[in-house]
Amino acid sequence: MKIGVLGTGMVGNAIGTKLVQLGHEVKMGARAANNDKAVAWVKAGGAGASQGTFADAAAFGEIVFNCTSGSGALTALEQAGADNLKGKVLIDIANPLDFSRGMPPSLSVCNTDSLGEQIQRAFPEVKVVKSLNTVNCNLMVNAALLPGEHVIFVSGNDADAKAQVTSILKDWFGWKSVIDRGDITTARATEMMLPIWISLMGKVGTPLFNFALVK
Amino acid sequence: MKIGVLGTGMVGNAIGTKLVQLGHEVKMGARAANNDKAVAWVKAGGAGASQGTFADAAAFGEIVFNCTSGSGALTALEQAGADNLKGKVLIDIANPLDFSRGMPPSLSVCNTDSLGEQIQRAFPEVKVVKSLNTVNCNLMVNAALLPGEHVIFVSGNDADAKAQVTSILKDWFGWKSVIDRGDITTARATEMMLPIWISLMGKVGTPLFNFALVK
Repeated sequence: MKIGVLGTGMVGNAIGTKLVQLGHEVKMGARAANNDKAVAWVKAGGAGASQGTFADAAAFGEIVFNCTSGSGALTALEQAGADNLKGKVLIDIANPLDFSRGMPPSLSVCNTDSLGEQIQRAFPEVKVVKSLNTVNCNLMVNAALLPGEHVIFVSGNDADAKAQVTSILKDWFGWKSVIDRGDITTARATEMMLPIWISLMGKVGTPLFNFALVK
Repeated sequence: MKIGVLGTGMVGNAIGTKLVQLGHEVKMGARAANNDKAVAWVKAGGAGASQGTFADAAAFGEIVFNCTSGSGALTALEQAGADNLKGKVLIDIANPLDFSRGMPPSLSVCNTDSLGEQIQRAFPEVKVVKSLNTVNCNLMVNAALLPGEHVIFVSGNDADAKAQVTSILKDWFGWKSVIDRGDITTARATEMMLPIWISLMGKVGTPLFNFALVK
Protein backbone atom coordinates (compact mmCIF):
# COMPACT_ATOMS: atom_id res chain seq x y z
CA MET A 1 0.00 0.00 0.00
CA LYS A 2 1.11 3.59 -0.59
CA ILE A 3 1.20 5.49 2.69
CA GLY A 4 1.93 9.11 3.54
CA VAL A 5 3.61 9.97 6.83
CA LEU A 6 3.48 13.63 7.84
CA GLY A 7 6.28 14.54 10.23
CA THR A 8 9.94 13.66 10.62
CA GLY A 9 10.22 13.36 14.40
CA MET A 10 10.42 10.25 16.54
CA VAL A 11 6.82 9.30 15.79
CA GLY A 12 7.06 9.75 12.03
CA ASN A 13 10.33 7.85 12.02
CA ALA A 14 8.95 4.91 14.02
CA ILE A 15 5.74 4.70 12.00
CA GLY A 16 7.49 5.11 8.64
CA THR A 17 10.21 2.60 9.44
CA LYS A 18 7.70 -0.04 10.56
CA LEU A 19 5.53 0.46 7.47
CA VAL A 20 8.53 0.07 5.14
CA GLN A 21 9.56 -3.07 7.03
CA LEU A 22 6.06 -4.41 6.39
CA GLY A 23 6.63 -3.94 2.65
CA HIS A 24 4.70 -0.73 2.06
CA GLU A 25 5.74 2.27 0.00
CA VAL A 26 6.07 5.19 2.38
CA LYS A 27 6.60 8.85 1.58
CA MET A 28 7.65 10.96 4.56
CA GLY A 29 6.48 14.55 4.28
CA ALA A 30 8.00 17.69 5.79
CA ARG A 31 7.71 21.43 5.34
CA ALA A 32 10.70 21.35 2.98
CA ALA A 33 11.22 18.59 0.43
CA ASN A 34 14.89 18.31 1.41
CA ASN A 35 14.32 18.04 5.17
CA ASP A 36 17.50 16.64 6.76
CA LYS A 37 15.75 14.11 8.97
CA ALA A 38 13.64 12.82 6.09
CA VAL A 39 16.75 12.52 3.89
CA ALA A 40 18.49 10.50 6.60
CA TRP A 41 15.42 8.31 7.08
CA VAL A 42 15.17 7.55 3.35
CA LYS A 43 18.87 6.63 3.21
CA ALA A 44 18.43 4.18 6.07
CA GLY A 45 14.99 3.06 5.05
CA GLY A 46 15.50 0.90 1.99
CA ALA A 47 13.52 0.49 -1.22
CA GLY A 48 10.08 1.54 -0.02
CA ALA A 49 11.12 4.83 1.56
CA SER A 50 10.83 8.19 -0.15
CA GLN A 51 10.42 11.80 0.92
CA GLY A 52 8.80 15.02 -0.15
CA THR A 53 6.76 17.95 1.05
CA PHE A 54 3.68 17.54 3.22
CA ALA A 55 1.67 17.91 -0.01
CA ASP A 56 3.75 15.25 -1.79
CA ALA A 57 3.22 12.77 1.06
CA ALA A 58 -0.51 13.50 1.32
CA ALA A 59 -1.01 13.08 -2.43
CA PHE A 60 1.07 9.88 -2.44
CA GLY A 61 -0.69 8.08 0.40
CA GLU A 62 -3.82 5.96 0.08
CA ILE A 63 -3.91 6.51 3.82
CA VAL A 64 -2.02 9.18 5.75
CA PHE A 65 -0.52 9.26 9.26
CA ASN A 66 -0.39 12.64 11.02
CA CYS A 67 2.84 12.42 13.04
CA THR A 68 3.42 16.15 13.37
CA SER A 69 3.67 17.98 16.66
CA GLY A 70 0.36 19.09 18.08
CA SER A 71 1.28 22.75 17.82
CA GLY A 72 2.20 22.37 14.15
CA ALA A 73 -0.48 19.90 13.08
CA LEU A 74 -3.08 22.21 11.56
CA THR A 75 -0.48 24.24 9.67
CA ALA A 76 1.17 21.08 8.38
CA LEU A 77 -2.19 19.69 7.25
CA GLU A 78 -2.99 22.97 5.46
CA GLN A 79 0.31 22.60 3.64
CA ALA A 80 -0.57 18.98 2.90
CA GLY A 81 -3.69 20.30 1.24
CA ALA A 82 -7.38 19.47 1.57
CA ASP A 83 -7.51 18.22 -2.02
CA ASN A 84 -4.63 15.80 -1.46
CA LEU A 85 -6.28 14.43 1.70
CA LYS A 86 -9.87 14.41 0.43
CA GLY A 87 -11.73 11.15 1.07
CA LYS A 88 -8.72 9.53 2.72
CA VAL A 89 -8.28 8.07 6.18
CA LEU A 90 -6.05 10.31 8.30
CA ILE A 91 -4.69 8.58 11.40
CA ASP A 92 -4.10 11.46 13.81
CA ILE A 93 -1.41 10.64 16.38
CA ALA A 94 -0.59 14.24 17.38
CA ASN A 95 -1.13 15.57 20.90
CA PRO A 96 -1.87 19.26 21.56
CA LEU A 97 0.97 19.69 24.04
CA ASP A 98 1.75 23.26 25.09
CA PHE A 99 5.30 23.70 26.36
CA SER A 100 5.04 27.50 26.56
CA ARG A 101 4.25 27.41 30.29
CA GLY A 102 7.21 25.17 31.07
CA MET A 103 7.29 21.55 32.21
CA PRO A 104 5.20 19.53 32.48
CA PRO A 105 3.35 20.69 29.37
CA SER A 106 -0.33 21.58 29.52
CA LEU A 107 -2.72 21.04 26.62
CA SER A 108 -3.43 23.83 24.11
CA VAL A 109 -6.96 22.48 23.66
CA CYS A 110 -8.95 20.12 25.87
CA ASN A 111 -12.11 19.37 27.82
CA THR A 112 -14.74 20.85 25.44
CA ASP A 113 -12.72 20.40 22.24
CA SER A 114 -9.71 18.43 21.00
CA LEU A 115 -7.06 18.52 18.32
CA GLY A 116 -8.76 15.59 16.63
CA GLU A 117 -11.99 17.58 16.36
CA GLN A 118 -10.16 20.70 15.19
CA ILE A 119 -8.61 18.69 12.38
CA GLN A 120 -11.93 17.06 11.46
CA ARG A 121 -13.65 20.48 11.38
CA ALA A 122 -10.86 21.99 9.26
CA PHE A 123 -10.94 19.04 6.84
CA PRO A 124 -14.54 17.83 6.72
CA GLU A 125 -13.91 15.56 3.72
CA VAL A 126 -11.11 13.69 5.46
CA LYS A 127 -11.86 10.61 7.58
CA VAL A 128 -10.00 11.50 10.77
CA VAL A 129 -9.31 8.66 13.20
CA LYS A 130 -7.58 9.58 16.44
CA SER A 131 -5.38 6.78 17.68
CA LEU A 132 -1.97 5.76 19.03
CA ASN A 133 -1.46 9.11 20.79
CA THR A 134 -1.50 7.53 24.26
CA VAL A 135 1.70 5.47 23.99
CA ASN A 136 5.38 5.80 23.14
CA CYS A 137 6.26 5.61 19.44
CA ASN A 138 8.17 2.34 19.72
CA LEU A 139 5.19 0.76 21.41
CA MET A 140 2.79 2.19 18.80
CA VAL A 141 4.23 -0.04 16.09
CA ASN A 142 5.04 -3.04 18.28
CA ALA A 143 2.51 -3.61 21.02
CA ALA A 144 4.23 -6.90 21.90
CA LEU A 145 7.03 -4.92 23.56
CA LEU A 146 4.76 -5.16 26.62
CA PRO A 147 2.99 -8.30 27.84
CA GLY A 148 -0.73 -8.92 27.71
CA GLU A 149 -3.71 -6.95 26.46
CA HIS A 150 -2.85 -3.35 27.20
CA VAL A 151 -5.13 -0.81 25.62
CA ILE A 152 -5.20 1.40 22.55
CA PHE A 153 -8.12 3.58 21.49
CA VAL A 154 -9.74 4.71 18.23
CA SER A 155 -12.07 7.71 17.89
CA GLY A 156 -13.68 8.89 14.67
CA ASN A 157 -16.91 9.67 12.84
CA ASP A 158 -16.52 7.12 10.02
CA ALA A 159 -17.14 3.47 10.95
CA ASP A 160 -15.34 2.06 7.91
CA ALA A 161 -12.31 4.24 8.58
CA LYS A 162 -12.18 3.06 12.19
CA ALA A 163 -12.48 -0.55 11.05
CA GLN A 164 -9.55 -0.05 8.67
CA VAL A 165 -7.44 1.58 11.37
CA THR A 166 -8.35 -1.18 13.80
CA SER A 167 -7.11 -3.76 11.28
CA ILE A 168 -3.87 -1.81 10.87
CA LEU A 169 -3.40 -1.69 14.63
CA LYS A 170 -4.04 -5.40 15.04
CA ASP A 171 -2.48 -6.90 11.91
CA TRP A 172 0.48 -4.58 11.37
CA PHE A 173 1.31 -3.28 14.84
CA GLY A 174 0.26 -6.24 17.02
CA TRP A 175 -2.42 -4.61 19.19
CA LYS A 176 -4.73 -7.15 20.79
CA SER A 177 -7.13 -4.80 22.59
CA VAL A 178 -8.41 -1.95 20.38
CA ILE A 179 -11.25 0.02 21.99
CA ASP A 180 -13.59 1.97 19.70
CA ARG A 181 -14.57 4.89 21.91
CA GLY A 182 -17.05 6.55 19.56
CA ASP A 183 -17.06 9.63 17.36
CA ILE A 184 -14.26 12.16 17.09
CA THR A 185 -15.44 14.07 20.16
CA THR A 186 -14.15 11.15 22.22
CA ALA A 187 -10.64 12.25 21.22
CA ARG A 188 -11.00 14.77 24.06
CA ALA A 189 -10.72 12.09 26.70
CA THR A 190 -7.87 10.32 24.89
CA GLU A 191 -5.83 13.51 24.55
CA MET A 192 -6.56 14.32 28.21
CA MET A 193 -4.70 11.16 29.20
CA LEU A 194 -1.42 12.82 28.19
CA PRO A 195 -0.83 14.58 31.53
CA ILE A 196 -1.04 11.32 33.49
CA TRP A 197 1.13 9.60 30.88
CA ILE A 198 3.82 12.27 31.10
CA SER A 199 3.70 12.23 34.89
CA LEU A 200 3.94 8.44 35.05
CA MET A 201 6.82 8.32 32.57
CA GLY A 202 8.93 10.06 35.20
CA LYS A 203 7.77 7.68 37.94
CA VAL A 204 8.09 4.49 35.90
CA GLY A 205 11.48 5.50 34.54
CA THR A 206 10.76 4.49 30.94
CA PRO A 207 8.37 5.59 28.21
CA LEU A 208 7.69 1.92 27.49
CA PHE A 209 4.58 1.46 29.60
CA ASN A 210 0.85 1.43 29.06
CA PHE A 211 -2.42 0.80 30.83
CA ALA A 212 -4.36 -2.45 30.85
CA LEU A 213 -8.05 -2.53 31.60
CA VAL A 214 -8.84 -4.59 34.71
CA LYS A 215 -12.44 -5.64 35.14
CA MET B 1 -9.97 6.86 65.04
CA LYS B 2 -12.52 9.68 64.75
CA ILE B 3 -13.18 10.46 61.10
CA GLY B 4 -15.29 13.10 59.37
CA VAL B 5 -16.98 12.29 56.07
CA LEU B 6 -18.32 15.27 54.14
CA GLY B 7 -21.09 14.29 51.74
CA THR B 8 -24.04 11.90 51.82
CA GLY B 9 -23.95 10.56 48.27
CA MET B 10 -22.72 7.18 47.03
CA VAL B 11 -19.09 8.05 47.79
CA GLY B 12 -19.73 9.31 51.31
CA ASN B 13 -21.91 6.33 51.99
CA ALA B 14 -19.33 3.80 50.76
CA ILE B 15 -16.43 5.46 52.60
CA GLY B 16 -18.40 5.98 55.81
CA THR B 17 -19.78 2.45 55.85
CA LYS B 18 -16.35 0.89 55.34
CA LEU B 19 -14.77 3.03 58.03
CA VAL B 20 -17.46 2.07 60.56
CA GLN B 21 -17.00 -1.60 59.63
CA LEU B 22 -13.30 -1.15 60.37
CA GLY B 23 -14.24 -0.01 63.88
CA HIS B 24 -13.83 3.75 63.52
CA GLU B 25 -16.14 6.47 64.80
CA VAL B 26 -17.50 8.27 61.75
CA LYS B 27 -19.55 11.46 61.60
CA MET B 28 -21.19 12.07 58.23
CA GLY B 29 -21.65 15.77 57.49
CA ALA B 30 -24.22 17.47 55.31
CA ARG B 31 -25.51 21.00 54.76
CA ALA B 32 -28.35 20.30 57.22
CA ALA B 33 -27.83 18.32 60.43
CA ASN B 34 -31.01 16.31 59.76
CA ASN B 35 -30.15 15.34 56.18
CA ASP B 36 -32.36 12.38 55.19
CA LYS B 37 -29.60 10.30 53.62
CA ALA B 38 -27.33 10.82 56.61
CA VAL B 39 -30.15 9.86 58.98
CA ALA B 40 -30.74 6.66 57.02
CA TRP B 41 -27.02 5.91 56.94
CA VAL B 42 -26.69 6.32 60.72
CA LYS B 43 -29.68 4.03 61.31
CA ALA B 44 -28.11 1.32 59.15
CA GLY B 45 -24.56 2.01 60.25
CA GLY B 46 -24.32 0.75 63.79
CA ALA B 47 -22.57 2.04 66.88
CA GLY B 48 -19.78 4.03 65.27
CA ALA B 49 -22.00 6.07 62.93
CA SER B 50 -23.21 9.58 63.69
CA GLN B 51 -24.29 12.60 61.69
CA GLY B 52 -24.20 16.38 61.78
CA THR B 53 -23.48 19.47 59.75
CA PHE B 54 -20.37 19.81 57.58
CA ALA B 55 -18.90 21.81 60.48
CA ASP B 56 -19.79 19.08 63.01
CA ALA B 57 -18.13 16.40 60.87
CA ALA B 58 -15.02 18.51 60.22
CA ALA B 59 -14.63 19.32 63.92
CA PHE B 60 -15.18 15.67 64.87
CA GLY B 61 -12.67 14.08 62.51
CA GLU B 62 -8.98 13.61 63.21
CA ILE B 63 -8.89 13.14 59.45
CA VAL B 64 -11.60 14.19 57.01
CA PHE B 65 -12.78 12.73 53.67
CA ASN B 66 -14.21 15.17 51.12
CA CYS B 67 -16.92 13.12 49.40
CA THR B 68 -18.98 16.06 48.14
CA SER B 69 -19.77 16.67 44.50
CA GLY B 70 -17.14 18.65 42.63
CA SER B 71 -19.50 21.54 42.00
CA GLY B 72 -20.38 21.79 45.69
CA ALA B 73 -17.00 21.02 47.22
CA LEU B 74 -15.68 24.51 47.93
CA THR B 75 -18.99 25.70 49.37
CA ALA B 76 -19.26 22.60 51.54
CA LEU B 77 -15.70 23.07 52.80
CA GLU B 78 -16.43 26.73 53.63
CA GLN B 79 -19.38 25.51 55.67
CA ALA B 80 -17.12 22.89 57.27
CA GLY B 81 -14.93 25.78 58.33
CA ALA B 82 -11.23 26.48 58.03
CA ASP B 83 -10.79 26.40 61.81
CA ASN B 84 -12.39 22.96 62.08
CA LEU B 85 -10.14 21.61 59.29
CA LYS B 86 -6.95 23.40 60.31
CA GLY B 87 -3.86 21.16 60.43
CA LYS B 88 -5.83 18.06 59.47
CA VAL B 89 -5.43 15.70 56.53
CA LEU B 90 -8.26 16.19 54.02
CA ILE B 91 -8.58 13.31 51.55
CA ASP B 92 -10.18 14.95 48.53
CA ILE B 93 -12.13 12.45 46.39
CA ALA B 94 -14.29 15.00 44.55
CA ASN B 95 -14.15 15.46 40.78
CA PRO B 96 -14.96 18.82 39.14
CA LEU B 97 -17.58 17.37 36.80
CA ASP B 98 -19.70 19.89 34.91
CA PHE B 99 -23.03 18.48 33.77
CA SER B 100 -24.36 21.87 32.57
CA ARG B 101 -23.38 21.12 28.95
CA GLY B 102 -25.12 17.74 28.96
CA MET B 103 -23.61 14.28 28.80
CA PRO B 104 -20.88 13.28 28.94
CA PRO B 105 -19.85 15.87 31.54
CA SER B 106 -16.87 18.12 30.95
CA LEU B 107 -14.64 19.40 33.76
CA SER B 108 -15.29 22.78 35.40
CA VAL B 109 -11.56 23.20 35.98
CA CYS B 110 -8.64 21.38 34.36
CA ASN B 111 -5.35 21.51 32.51
CA THR B 112 -3.70 24.50 34.25
CA ASP B 113 -5.55 24.11 37.56
CA SER B 114 -7.54 21.47 39.44
CA LEU B 115 -10.14 21.17 42.15
CA GLY B 116 -7.47 19.74 44.45
CA GLU B 117 -5.39 22.88 44.00
CA GLN B 118 -8.41 25.15 44.44
CA ILE B 119 -9.14 23.50 47.77
CA GLN B 120 -5.50 23.68 48.89
CA ARG B 121 -5.36 27.40 47.97
CA ALA B 122 -8.65 28.12 49.77
CA PHE B 123 -7.51 26.20 52.88
CA PRO B 124 -3.74 26.68 53.09
CA GLU B 125 -3.54 25.20 56.61
CA VAL B 126 -5.23 21.95 55.59
CA LYS B 127 -3.13 19.03 54.31
CA VAL B 128 -5.01 18.22 51.11
CA VAL B 129 -4.32 14.81 49.55
CA LYS B 130 -6.09 14.06 46.27
CA SER B 131 -6.86 10.37 45.93
CA LEU B 132 -9.47 7.72 45.10
CA ASN B 133 -11.20 10.01 42.56
CA THR B 134 -10.32 7.74 39.62
CA VAL B 135 -12.39 4.69 40.60
CA ASN B 136 -15.93 3.68 41.54
CA CYS B 137 -16.87 4.11 45.22
CA ASN B 138 -17.24 0.38 45.90
CA LEU B 139 -13.76 -0.19 44.51
CA MET B 140 -12.33 2.72 46.52
CA VAL B 141 -12.87 0.89 49.79
CA ASN B 142 -12.25 -2.64 48.51
CA ALA B 143 -9.53 -2.81 45.87
CA ALA B 144 -9.69 -6.61 45.97
CA LEU B 145 -12.96 -6.48 44.02
CA LEU B 146 -10.62 -6.54 41.00
CA PRO B 147 -7.65 -8.85 40.57
CA GLY B 148 -4.01 -7.83 40.60
CA GLU B 149 -2.19 -4.56 41.14
CA HIS B 150 -4.42 -1.97 39.53
CA VAL B 151 -3.48 1.61 40.27
CA ILE B 152 -4.51 4.36 42.66
CA PHE B 153 -2.83 7.74 42.96
CA VAL B 154 -2.03 10.24 45.71
CA SER B 155 -1.16 13.91 45.10
CA GLY B 156 -0.36 16.44 47.81
CA ASN B 157 2.13 18.91 49.18
CA ASP B 158 2.68 17.27 52.59
CA ALA B 159 4.81 14.12 52.61
CA ASP B 160 3.58 12.92 56.01
CA ALA B 161 -0.04 13.39 54.96
CA LYS B 162 0.54 11.38 51.79
CA ALA B 163 2.24 8.65 53.83
CA GLN B 164 -0.76 8.49 56.17
CA VAL B 165 -3.20 8.34 53.25
CA THR B 166 -1.09 5.68 51.57
CA SER B 167 -1.31 3.57 54.74
CA ILE B 168 -5.08 4.04 54.82
CA LEU B 169 -5.35 2.97 51.19
CA LYS B 170 -3.21 -0.10 51.73
CA ASP B 171 -4.17 -1.24 55.22
CA TRP B 172 -7.85 -0.30 55.32
CA PHE B 173 -8.95 -0.42 51.68
CA GLY B 174 -6.65 -3.13 50.27
CA TRP B 175 -4.77 -1.15 47.63
CA LYS B 176 -1.52 -2.84 46.60
CA SER B 177 -0.22 -0.27 44.13
CA VAL B 178 -0.34 3.33 45.43
CA ILE B 179 1.52 5.79 43.21
CA ASP B 180 2.69 9.06 44.77
CA ARG B 181 2.50 11.42 41.83
CA GLY B 182 3.94 14.51 43.50
CA ASP B 183 2.56 17.76 44.83
CA ILE B 184 -1.05 18.89 44.61
CA THR B 185 -0.58 20.26 41.07
CA THR B 186 -0.43 16.63 39.92
CA ALA B 187 -4.12 16.40 40.80
CA ARG B 188 -4.68 18.01 37.38
CA ALA B 189 -3.68 14.86 35.55
CA THR B 190 -5.63 12.61 37.91
CA GLU B 191 -8.82 14.64 37.55
CA MET B 192 -8.28 14.71 33.76
CA MET B 193 -8.62 10.92 33.73
CA LEU B 194 -12.33 11.27 34.46
CA PRO B 195 -13.42 11.70 30.84
CA ILE B 196 -11.75 8.44 29.76
CA TRP B 197 -13.16 6.70 32.85
CA ILE B 198 -16.70 7.88 32.11
CA SER B 199 -16.38 6.90 28.45
CA LEU B 200 -15.01 3.46 29.30
CA MET B 201 -17.72 2.79 31.88
CA GLY B 202 -20.20 2.77 29.00
CA LYS B 203 -18.01 0.45 26.93
CA VAL B 204 -17.08 -1.93 29.74
CA GLY B 205 -20.68 -2.07 30.98
CA THR B 206 -19.81 -1.73 34.68
CA PRO B 207 -18.25 0.93 36.89
CA LEU B 208 -16.15 -1.80 38.50
CA PHE B 209 -13.02 -1.47 36.39
CA ASN B 210 -9.65 0.18 36.71
CA PHE B 211 -6.30 0.52 34.98
CA ALA B 212 -3.22 -1.52 35.71
CA LEU B 213 0.21 -0.27 34.80
CA VAL B 214 1.94 -2.56 32.29
CA LYS B 215 5.69 -2.11 31.95
